[in-house]
Amino acid sequence: MRNIALLSEYDGTNFHGWQTQGNCRTVQEELTKAIRKITSHGSILIGCSRTDSGVHATGHVSNFHTDSAIPVEKFPIALNSNLPGDVHILDAVETGQGFHAGYDAKAKRYRYRISFGDKGRALDRNRIYYVKMIPDISAMKEAAAAFCGTHDFRSFMASGGETKTTVRTITKLDICETGCGADIVVEGNGFLYNMVRIMAGTIYYAGIGKIAPGIIEEIILARDRKFAGKTLPAHGLYLEKVFYTDVSFGYND
Amino acid sequence: MRNIALLSEYDGTNFHGWQTQGNCRTVQEELTKAIRKITSHGSILIGCSRTDSGVHATGHVSNFHTDSAIPVEKFPIALNSNLPGDVHILDAVETGQGFHAGYDAKAKRYRYRISFGDKGRALDRNRIYYVKMIPDISAMKEAAAAFCGTHDFRSFMASGGETKTTVRTITKLDICETGCGADIVVEGNGFLYNMVRIMAGTIYYAGIGKIAPGIIEEIILARDRKFAGKTLPAHGLYLEKVFYTDVSFGYND
Repeated sequence: MRNIALLSEYDGTNFHGWQTQGNCRTVQEELTKAIRKITSHGSILIGCSRTDSGVHATGHVSNFHTDSAIPVEKFPIALNSNLPGDVHILDAVETGQGFHAGYDAKAKRYRYRISFGDKGRALDRNRIYYVKMIPDISAMKEAAAAFCGTHDFRSFMASGGETKTTVRTITKLDICETGCGADIVVEGNGFLYNMVRIMAGTIYYAGIGKIAPGIIEEIILARDRKFAGKTLPAHGLYLEKVFYTDVSFGYND
Repeated sequence: MRNIALLSEYDGTNFHGWQTQGNCRTVQEELTKAIRKITSHGSILIGCSRTDSGVHATGHVSNFHTDSAIPVEKFPIALNSNLPGDVHILDAVETGQGFHAGYDAKAKRYRYRISFGDKGRALDRNRIYYVKMIPDISAMKEAAAAFCGTHDFRSFMASGGETKTTVRTITKLDICETGCGADIVVEGNGFLYNMVRIMAGTIYYAGIGKIAPGIIEEIILARDRKFAGKTLPAHGLYLEKVFYTDVSFGYND
């Protein structure tokens, strides 16, 4: 059977996350329905990761097996004409038989968008987290630097996370100024439950003086959620890119 | 009585335009309810213009009279805490008794956002008009230039428009490249019903070779809607700024 990988963008606002669960509307469910429609058979769609309700993606990856003869470059247009407006296939590639969008992900990049301005509060209310206090960007950068490297990130995991180990490696954590805001862009080999949102909250707290940037190292060592900052809301978070050794898409980045 | 002018931003997606009509949800209705709540009396809210269902604003201006003693700088925060998320007051100023947001508007600026890319099709589906054919920007610029000046714009008015004269002056019409798209930014002393969306459609048609840029002048002279391009959809349009002689806001632009 052929193995097709999909690169997709979605607006998380009206989805109960990526993964199908109960009677809630999910991205996986919409994609699976569209795949069934164009291939005329059911498929198990494997995702690179779940995202929570309200979280967006500009580069989510999933894969499925099919006997369909549809040329791979036709999948995006065929699927898009069967998908609702809030999920869109950006690209499709044919992969080796064994490719698994979840297990084979070597790294992921997330973006958390914060604005301190007033403009966009109506138009981007589901896209950007608007804050009242203007943070000190240099304090945010100092805090961000402390996360890089391999650490036990238990302090940055919400309860409910299931994982064998809480050790992860953060390879990059940039604070990108955006005019009247800042994006927190983080890359790593894996992320615990709500980890990016708790890290973003901790970095923001450092920016507004609620946490001294110098004590991030101690918060990490404490391995206790209660010392980290608050979990920022879902709607500021974007899954931006997933990195694989053997699979890449025509665009993204 | 005091006369208060409001600068507001709104996401037009879930509004049936600005102006109250029947049982539809409108921006004017939400603003009027919020004003009643904080001033404890009813007010007639005068708008700079109506916008159609789905059209957004980043700088809509309206005004109302009140006896309330609320300091003018407190109006935005007081109103915003009584408004739904898709409409937001950016600023409030106290004006002279006679100021009228509609009659006193000297000029308006609109922006029509077009994208030829694939990115954002899910996230910005209600914010940007996504097109399939990539237009030639230089042809769009050539077409745009022909609109500048004082003309009878009857060819660019949808039926249903009520106006004494169809002569208007366009002072500026820029095509701003945005990476994978183009914004059509137009300033003028007034606009006929659907005029910006028909102009944008005509300029886009020039970009994709459906209309020769050189015949825009003839289309204007024809004074007949059927020669102009199609009306582009509402969701790509933004009312960006309204210009007054005596009233200006702390920000906008």
